[in-house]
Amino acid sequence: MSILDTGVRNVRNVLRYTVGEGALSELPKLLAARRSEGTYSIVFFIDAFFKSQPDIIARLGITSDDKTVFVATEEEPSTDAIDQITIQLRDIGFAQPCAIVGMGGGITMDVAKAVSNLLTNGGKAEDYQGWDLIKTPGIYKVAIPTLSGTGAEATRTCVMTNKRTSLKLGMNSDFTVYDQIVMDPMLTATVPRSQYFYTGMDAYIHCVEALAGNYRNAIGDAYSRETINLCRQVFLEGDMMSPLNRERLMVASYLGGCAIATSYVGLVHPFSAGLSVVLGLHHCVANCIVMRAMQPYYPKEFDEFWKMVEKQEVDIPEGIARNLSDYQYEQLYASTIIHQKPLTNALGEEYRNTLTKEKVTKIFKQM
Amino acid sequence: MSILDTGVRNVRNVLRYTVGEGALSELPKLLAARRSEGTYSIVFFIDAFFKSQPDIIARLGITSDDKTVFVATEEEPSTDAIDQITIQLRDIGFAQPCAIVGMGGGITMDVAKAVSNLLTNGGKAEDYQGWDLIKTPGIYKVAIPTLSGTGAEATRTCVMTNKRTSLKLGMNSDFTVYDQIVMDPMLTATVPRSQYFYTGMDAYIHCVEALAGNYRNAIGDAYSRETINLCRQVFLEGDMMSPLNRERLMVASYLGGCAIATSYVGLVHPFSAGLSVVLGLHHCVANCIVMRAMQPYYPKEFDEFWKMVEKQEVDIPEGIARNLSDYQYEQLYASTIIHQKPLTNALGEEYRNTLTKEKVTKIFKQM
Repeated sequence: MSILDTGVRNVRNVLRYTVGEGALSELPKLLAARRSEGTYSIVFFIDAFFKSQPDIIARLGITSDDKTVFVATEEEPSTDAIDQITIQLRDIGFAQPCAIVGMGGGITMDVAKAVSNLLTNGGKAEDYQGWDLIKTPGIYKVAIPTLSGTGAEATRTCVMTNKRTSLKLGMNSDFTVYDQIVMDPMLTATVPRSQYFYTGMDAYIHCVEALAGNYRNAIGDAYSRETINLCRQVFLEGDMMSPLNRERLMVASYLGGCAIATSYVGLVHPFSAGLSVVLGLHHCVANCIVMRAMQPYYPKEFDEFWKMVEKQEVDIPEGIARNLSDYQYEQLYASTIIHQKPLTNALGEEYRNTLTKEKVTKIFKQM
Repeated sequence: MSILDTGVRNVRNVLRYTVGEGALSELPKLLAARRSEGTYSIVFFIDAFFKSQPDIIARLGITSDDKTVFVATEEEPSTDAIDQITIQLRDIGFAQPCAIVGMGGGITMDVAKAVSNLLTNGGKAEDYQGWDLIKTPGIYKVAIPTLSGTGAEATRTCVMTNKRTSLKLGMNSDFTVYDQIVMDPMLTATVPRSQYFYTGMDAYIHCVEALAGNYRNAIGDAYSRETINLCRQVFLEGDMMSPLNRERLMVASYLGGCAIATSYVGLVHPFSAGLSVVLGLHHCVANCIVMRAMQPYYPKEFDEFWKMVEKQEVDIPEGIARNLSDYQYEQLYASTIIHQKPLTNALGEEYRNTLTKEKVTKIFKQM
């Protein structure tokens, strides 16, 4: 199969970004500029972890006119949860804040995106699960990533689980893209090492998948290559959590997000989605678990991945899908094989011939 | 000297970009979407070369309500020329077009930027030469690069020469950044080989300078590295003008523009500016001429540059500053040494101790 057009057309960039140790100090000034236009209040979505970090909260410039919502990150957001938050904000007079801030990892940044869209577009979150269904720009929004790797700060989607339809699908829209990102590597200093590694590997893995794919273009390739390059510096040279490496990984996450905006993932993400749906594993650790079985598909990157694991002395769970019931393997197969676009990207249109139920089960057992 | 903060803060991205063979076909639709909002007319600034390419002009979707201005590119735009174009547009009823299109190389894209700013901000072009002097967003503007390398499609400035003050300085402003870029590699197929090479080398050279500088940050470095990587593919592997390589160089130009938005050039650009000011040489060929004397400062890149020249069988003018008058060497020295920021970036604050008048003259004689 030769290289195919990605079909990705007009790409929406994040409008502005600021990066570097101390970038967070600029936030109150950035927000003040918004406050003078139109309404005054701002809604802050903040990862619940920061409840225990009053020093950081104090630096955000939150006023008594604002509303802070701490986001629990045990589970990925459901469409119901997004609806509920939106209704509550409307009820307490925050129907039209002048800005929404999402400070946290992928989950928190995604919640802020979804609520921003819903406040201006009306209806329910599930009405917008799909592609280009949002009609009106959302509330102006600012991302402050406190975990690096998913690229949520740069992408045009926000992952949501619909419990009624069992659909895990975001609001894919240009309007979902952030207006402003504030990247301050100070914020990732307190992340547990294993979580820092798993999340960072999301950037590495989706760029590996993109570069090995059939659907490609010159700019997606460029972003992917440089993201992988940065990940090599971070995870193969010295301590991955040194101040310089935390800044590099923050940049890698952003550029990796730009990469997936113009390309597709491959084999790892569909298998990882299977683990999330059936066994409830978090996306980033699930990706790393899938890498246990990826030697035949991404041989060089498989070796490099395990070198990074060893160098940074991180544990990747093992045997997690080894002794499951037939029913569970059925479910795993079903929730892997539905990812048509990534699997076609990796294996071509006849991917079902390669990935039979037996083969998929065998792969899961290798994890 | 250790690595210093660039001081670059909140960076404005181009809002949208489209890339790939055939991207130009999307233009009429993109413009139609603007036409339905507010006024209907559009001003097209087009490199005068395209007068002889009616097939391409026909694809732009120009209507009888629009105005086309063909831009001569023998000289860099003067503030007087920008003022004159702006007055003429106002006089013939184009004071508030719904969009401005700049289709060409750096000069044409810069003219479109400057006129867009001036139409909404009033006054004269020279009033805005400097940093952050523009107060109001310009007319919505679209860049269609037809030459790859300068990065004008991505940067926040537009070079203008002020004949009264002899100042070569742009309107450095977030408002100068394009709203939309359309990157169609088909458009660079007819560029003369030497011009294609010189212009492409602008991207390579400013990224080499940035990566060797004292002022750095993680994202500027990332953009620079990938730009250089793309230039290596284009100029060291096969024909630099193959369709794939033309797409790669278009991406390199854009990412190189993103790189200079967050970093500084070094030694080459000040010497190159000297050649432009005193001998009237075009920016991109002047850069290449300066590379003749850069072995002591960028030794590895010097070797790589000349390998690229050889591989692509391009001529770089030689001996151009070898036998000049004392007065001309005085002028060359003066117009090189004033570039304080780039020279500090390259050599540190005491750069005048290294770059004495004798030394600078010797360097020019090596070209």
